[in-house]
Amino acid sequence: MKFKSLLNGIKTYEAGKPMELLVREYGIKPGDIIKLASNENPYGTSPAVIKSLNRSIDKVSMYPDDSAYELKSALASHFDMLSENIIIGAGSDQIIEFVINSICDTNSKILMAKTTFAMYEIYGRLSGATILKTQSHEHNIDDFKDIYKKHKPNIIFLCLPNNPLGECLNTDEVYAFLDSIDKNTLVVIDGAYQEYARYKDPSKVIDPKDITTKYSNTICLGTFSKVYGLGGLRVGYGISNRNTIATLHKLRPPFNITTLSLQGAIEALKDQKFVHDTVEKNFEQMIRYEEFADKKGLKYIDSYTNFIFIYMETNSKELCEKLLKKGLIVRDMTSYGLNAIRITIGTKKQNDTVLEVLDKLC
Amino acid sequence: MKFKSLLNGIKTYEAGKPMELLVREYGIKPGDIIKLASNENPYGTSPAVIKSLNRSIDKVSMYPDDSAYELKSALASHFDMLSENIIIGAGSDQIIEFVINSICDTNSKILMAKTTFAMYEIYGRLSGATILKTQSHEHNIDDFKDIYKKHKPNIIFLCLPNNPLGECLNTDEVYAFLDSIDKNTLVVIDGAYQEYARYKDPSKVIDPKDITTKYSNTICLGTFSKVYGLGGLRVGYGISNRNTIATLHKLRPPFNITTLSLQGAIEALKDQKFVHDTVEKNFEQMIRYEEFADKKGLKYIDSYTNFIFIYMETNSKELCEKLLKKGLIVRDMTSYGLNAIRITIGTKKQNDTVLEVLDKLC
Repeated sequence: MKFKSLLNGIKTYEAGKPMELLVREYGIKPGDIIKLASNENPYGTSPAVIKSLNRSIDKVSMYPDDSAYELKSALASHFDMLSENIIIGAGSDQIIEFVINSICDTNSKILMAKTTFAMYEIYGRLSGATILKTQSHEHNIDDFKDIYKKHKPNIIFLCLPNNPLGECLNTDEVYAFLDSIDKNTLVVIDGAYQEYARYKDPSKVIDPKDITTKYSNTICLGTFSKVYGLGGLRVGYGISNRNTIATLHKLRPPFNITTLSLQGAIEALKDQKFVHDTVEKNFEQMIRYEEFADKKGLKYIDSYTNFIFIYMETNSKELCEKLLKKGLIVRDMTSYGLNAIRITIGTKKQNDTVLEVLDKLC
Repeated sequence: MKFKSLLNGIKTYEAGKPMELLVREYGIKPGDIIKLASNENPYGTSPAVIKSLNRSIDKVSMYPDDSAYELKSALASHFDMLSENIIIGAGSDQIIEFVINSICDTNSKILMAKTTFAMYEIYGRLSGATILKTQSHEHNIDDFKDIYKKHKPNIIFLCLPNNPLGECLNTDEVYAFLDSIDKNTLVVIDGAYQEYARYKDPSKVIDPKDITTKYSNTICLGTFSKVYGLGGLRVGYGISNRNTIATLHKLRPPFNITTLSLQGAIEALKDQKFVHDTVEKNFEQMIRYEEFADKKGLKYIDSYTNFIFIYMETNSKELCEKLLKKGLIVRDMTSYGLNAIRITIGTKKQNDTVLEVLDKLC
């Protein structure tokens, strides 16, 4: 078979190690595993969601409402916008895919931070576009401006706050940047962790209504996979002006999220107390990791998310392997060219164990 | 924003009317609605699946096992193949998308029957490929051969049995066709309804192992959305040689099916008695629609699926609207240029109601 030649250069994505693998490979009991590698919500999801899903199980044989009428209405109301401003994806990943595929071919260019969410580059390369990255690992707006002026990319990704590093640009820096670029470049603002940033520091808030109304060349992304605790159900959304959303809908496959995902997301959005409590506990627990790093003299990045990125002095890959054999899964950053680890902030009990083990190994 | 110009010609997909819409638009009570429009399993799903999903609900906050280790092993064992021969998609739709995007660009050609599963054309057009169709609505292998010789398409879709018409080519016709085409054309054999065809007539069976082993340029698709009763969970699969599967994996987004979808599919595959009973009841009930059509002098297509395609003498669109107002949802075929309806074969009770109403309206 003759497949597209650009696929020769594409590697298959390797996700973080799932628990099932540890159970299989090292014979560790499922109950003894602590997985803090994929920034899931360690408090699970809202009890109201669980209850609602239990009631909905007998609907699994029926296709979901393809228009996602109720979920779009709920999101529109949450963000003070209209349903026509919203598109639903199987995770915000899928919106990234729609955005890239609606614009890019082999003549296109996509700009992103040097170290940021892997899917921007993966979908970008699949489209045949050229990937441009800043010199700085973290988002540096001057870097972005320089490369923008030189290359006029078709799409720019801003991950605010940034996964896997945790830093976040200030709102006023973002607005000033948007003022400096022309309307033929689409700026994607990925707010997968915005609920965390907005709690920690109001100067990081990106308001989808305000920004997409002022700048027609922006789209904001959000997800139910993080603070809403629905990583397993794959629901994300994009918010933009009606023309951009209508165009992206042309790329959306029918029934792109499941019946239960739809139900879970609708319920999750209602329980903002769960969101608040999750974020509050997250930053209470994060202090413990910061204190640990300070005590050990390890550098870390000030985080506006539910994870912390810590530079290591010993080999981070070896450290992660040692942790893995003890049933502790965190993310090694060697593949990003950084001797560091990214740890999702767990529950108090999970962090007790992780910090105790790390204290011995670092 | 400058979106790709090929999107100008693309229409947004309109799925069948969901129940929620009837409830909203006509004020019909959910319990009074009979939806036989999307070929879901009217018997729901296996009780073992429901039980297993109930036990798994608390896993929704965790990402699924991205390798789908257990599901691929189970499918491999079911088809007497290896896990490396299998790829999992969010419905078999997603495998169609991978296949087209792995091969096609604006220079490519895709061949299909005139009236067949809509997603072949939708994904084909999104890739920029030229769509070629047979003259005949139903699959006609001589038509396929003629167009193949003239245009040498990159991909050929055979839908066996065919949705939305219901007919099915014989196995020996398919093998003879494969003998006549060269290895640079990928033939996709969509077996979404194969479990039904194989029960009704052994001369329609497509065995994925046999066909993909004999013809390296084939891929077989299957789904959990139909006989397994998991339409709402979006799980399908592709079976081919390891090289083709490895290439398609490069296009697979991480975590493309949900935690619950994975669990549901693993359990569903185990309950082959549910599959057998579903298919048996399906054909017992289908006879009633055939007898109805015969009585009314309406032509229908001999069906190897869980639906029946009936040509109407009165206007099919108007008929479907009348049915809709009574809470009965079936599929009008006007958009395919055919004055006909497609009815999913329901349970005895559902069919009692539908046939009674149809008797008055036809």
